Amino acid sequence: MFSLRTPLRHTFLRSASTIPKRHITVFGYTQAKALIFSEHGQPKDVLRLHSHSISPAYGDEIVVRFLAAPINPADINQIEGVYPSKPTFTTTLGTPTPHAVPGNEGAVQVLSIGSSVTDFTPGDMAIMRHTAFGTWRSHATARSSNLLKLPKSPSITPLQAATVSVNPCTAYRMLKDFVPLQPGQWFVQNAANSGVGRAALQFGRIWGLKSVNVVRHREGIEELKRELMELGGGGEAGTVVLTDQELADPEVRKGVIDRMGGKGAMLGLNSVGGKAGIDLCKLLDTGGHLVTYGAMSKKPLTLGAGLLIFRDLHFHGFWVSRWSDQHPVEKEAMLEEIFRYIASGELKDVPMETTVWKRDTKEEELKAAIERSTQGFGGKKQVFVFEDE
Amino acid sequence: MFSLRTPLRHTFLRSASTIPKRHITVFGYTQAKALIFSEHGQPKDVLRLHSHSISPAYGDEIVVRFLAAPINPADINQIEGVYPSKPTFTTTLGTPTPHAVPGNEGAVQVLSIGSSVTDFTPGDMAIMRHTAFGTWRSHATARSSNLLKLPKSPSITPLQAATVSVNPCTAYRMLKDFVPLQPGQWFVQNAANSGVGRAALQFGRIWGLKSVNVVRHREGIEELKRELMELGGGGEAGTVVLTDQELADPEVRKGVIDRMGGKGAMLGLNSVGGKAGIDLCKLLDTGGHLVTYGAMSKKPLTLGAGLLIFRDLHFHGFWVSRWSDQHPVEKEAMLEEIFRYIASGELKDVPMETTVWKRDTKEEELKAAIERSTQGFGGKKQVFVFEDE
Repeated sequence: MFSLRTPLRHTFLRSASTIPKRHITVFGYTQAKALIFSEHGQPKDVLRLHSHSISPAYGDEIVVRFLAAPINPADINQIEGVYPSKPTFTTTLGTPTPHAVPGNEGAVQVLSIGSSVTDFTPGDMAIMRHTAFGTWRSHATARSSNLLKLPKSPSITPLQAATVSVNPCTAYRMLKDFVPLQPGQWFVQNAANSGVGRAALQFGRIWGLKSVNVVRHREGIEELKRELMELGGGGEAGTVVLTDQELADPEVRKGVIDRMGGKGAMLGLNSVGGKAGIDLCKLLDTGGHLVTYGAMSKKPLTLGAGLLIFRDLHFHGFWVSRWSDQHPVEKEAMLEEIFRYIASGELKDVPMETTVWKRDTKEEELKAAIERSTQGFGGKKQVFVFEDE
Repeated sequence: MFSLRTPLRHTFLRSASTIPKRHITVFGYTQAKALIFSEHGQPKDVLRLHSHSISPAYGDEIVVRFLAAPINPADINQIEGVYPSKPTFTTTLGTPTPHAVPGNEGAVQVLSIGSSVTDFTPGDMAIMRHTAFGTWRSHATARSSNLLKLPKSPSITPLQAATVSVNPCTAYRMLKDFVPLQPGQWFVQNAANSGVGRAALQFGRIWGLKSVNVVRHREGIEELKRELMELGGGGEAGTVVLTDQELADPEVRKGVIDRMGGKGAMLGLNSVGGKAGIDLCKLLDTGGHLVTYGAMSKKPLTLGAGLLIFRDLHFHGFWVSRWSDQHPVEKEAMLEEIFRYIASGELKDVPMETTVWKRDTKEEELKAAIERSTQGFGGKKQVFVFEDE
């Protein structure tokens, strides 16, 4: 039905269902590496690559190796110290002073289990149950409560598993939890080219929703528009893609609202803030809801009282970490559904760029990937993929 | 129980249950006066006092005389043309060009009814069912759909009836419709000395809610604090009153939050906006709701994404006109409840200053009252009371 280009190549990833034969242990101790930091600052200044060894799994311990771990904006903010949930600094990695491991998302494979572990067996694949585990590392000691076991589906790659918890989950919840949208109804969003934006666009198509998608004007905008139109199912399915500049034009906006049936949407998803956030409000109907999940413009939403009182707009925020911690059962059900969409090809990955993390990968190579992740818009999502050989 | 000073003197108002004997008609035509305007602008520039006559009630018509009509900020904004709901300009008052009558709230007495009117009889008291009727006039022709009949209670004065639809109703709905507060729980508000603020404070006391009330620092602040504390039932009942300057002090704020049991409230009522609106947010708990119903500072609410995403605050507006139009049945039930509180003495009036509008009252006297209503904070509510002699 959809002939989408798959911008992700992950064939180099070995099948995750077998434990690497040459997994290196010394007297049962696993040789591990982790990016660590002991004080907040710019990643390039404060991160360093640390070697350590991990004791054999004892009691309820589960020794895992990482398969893939993405670099998300929130990870960077945590290292900088400008994120509300702070990492825990400890000396458990054998450092003389307390350190923390960055990274919130990741997919792992179980290498060995302690004698009292009953719900995991070596070879199982899992993702992090909560944020803040510290996923930018080759190996770790975990417990059952840290892990969410993945279905044994040959159609889910480690890369897909490692990147599902933040962006697709955010898009899913924002479309479900604020306004009860029915098939045929519209939502609007900015940052439509982001990981969350692309997921929202596709969930919309899967659930029969129509969407207006705003992206920043850029080189190659026509190509991007075509790509996003296709993700949404095309114009006949009710997909509109326009630039922030077009949205700022009252004539264009009027055309879009006509296209929506003469009135705005009841739901808007905002990851930009500032003027772009307010412009998006102009596509909302009286009584509509704007959900903010990011502030790429680094500017606040400036709400005149008229937007609140006379247009009766409602403003909310969404933070997937809080939601996940508060809804563990719903999270499992949602992930199951999302993995079905991935396995069936209905939900496509975002464009990714992988950095292979091997035993001999240098600190600089890893930092270069982190640096790339912070370089403006339009870049690909950066992901570490681990090779244990 | 409560020994509140009643700042309102309305003993000069004749009992509203009898029709004035000397009501002036000429061959059945009622001699009437109305403030009118034909173009938007400053009230003192565009308003003029117009004399006209009203035909005898015919068919479904009801001829009423006004008893009292307040001057609300929204009335002024409508005359200025900066309010979203515009008045209707017509020539029905016998003017050569279209004019509108300002005023949204008012209490009336029925003088005569057309032959097909069954639900009103002469002598009945009523208030406006909807806004925008045009209440700054001595007499008018209405229909049943314009009027909400009042209970025949000797304890409700026309002044109280005329001022219940906007401020007490706004306070009532904001406390009921956004967060399900239980007795013993807190809400916070700024502009606590306003008509809405005083009503919220008192509904809180009646319903067992505790409240933190912010007022602007001013001369005589200690006296005002005492008065508002009393309206809330005192400190033992959980009433806190503080100034905007005190709220801006982190130490004071910490003390207030301690007083609230260590965490903020789930509901805040904001009529100021700007920095004061954001300061009020600091008294809200994670997941709390701020409802904006005014913008006395004339400044927008500037929401950093952290307030939305990490503090999970929700921002709404409330406009009593829209609510009233959408909930006619609930409105009647609510008014019945509020009139009970007024009759029992549980809900006290706000401080008012009345301007008597008689046959020979000059335009300048009426405009002076309108001018007083716009003069800064701390002033009394201005109300026209009509004497038909």
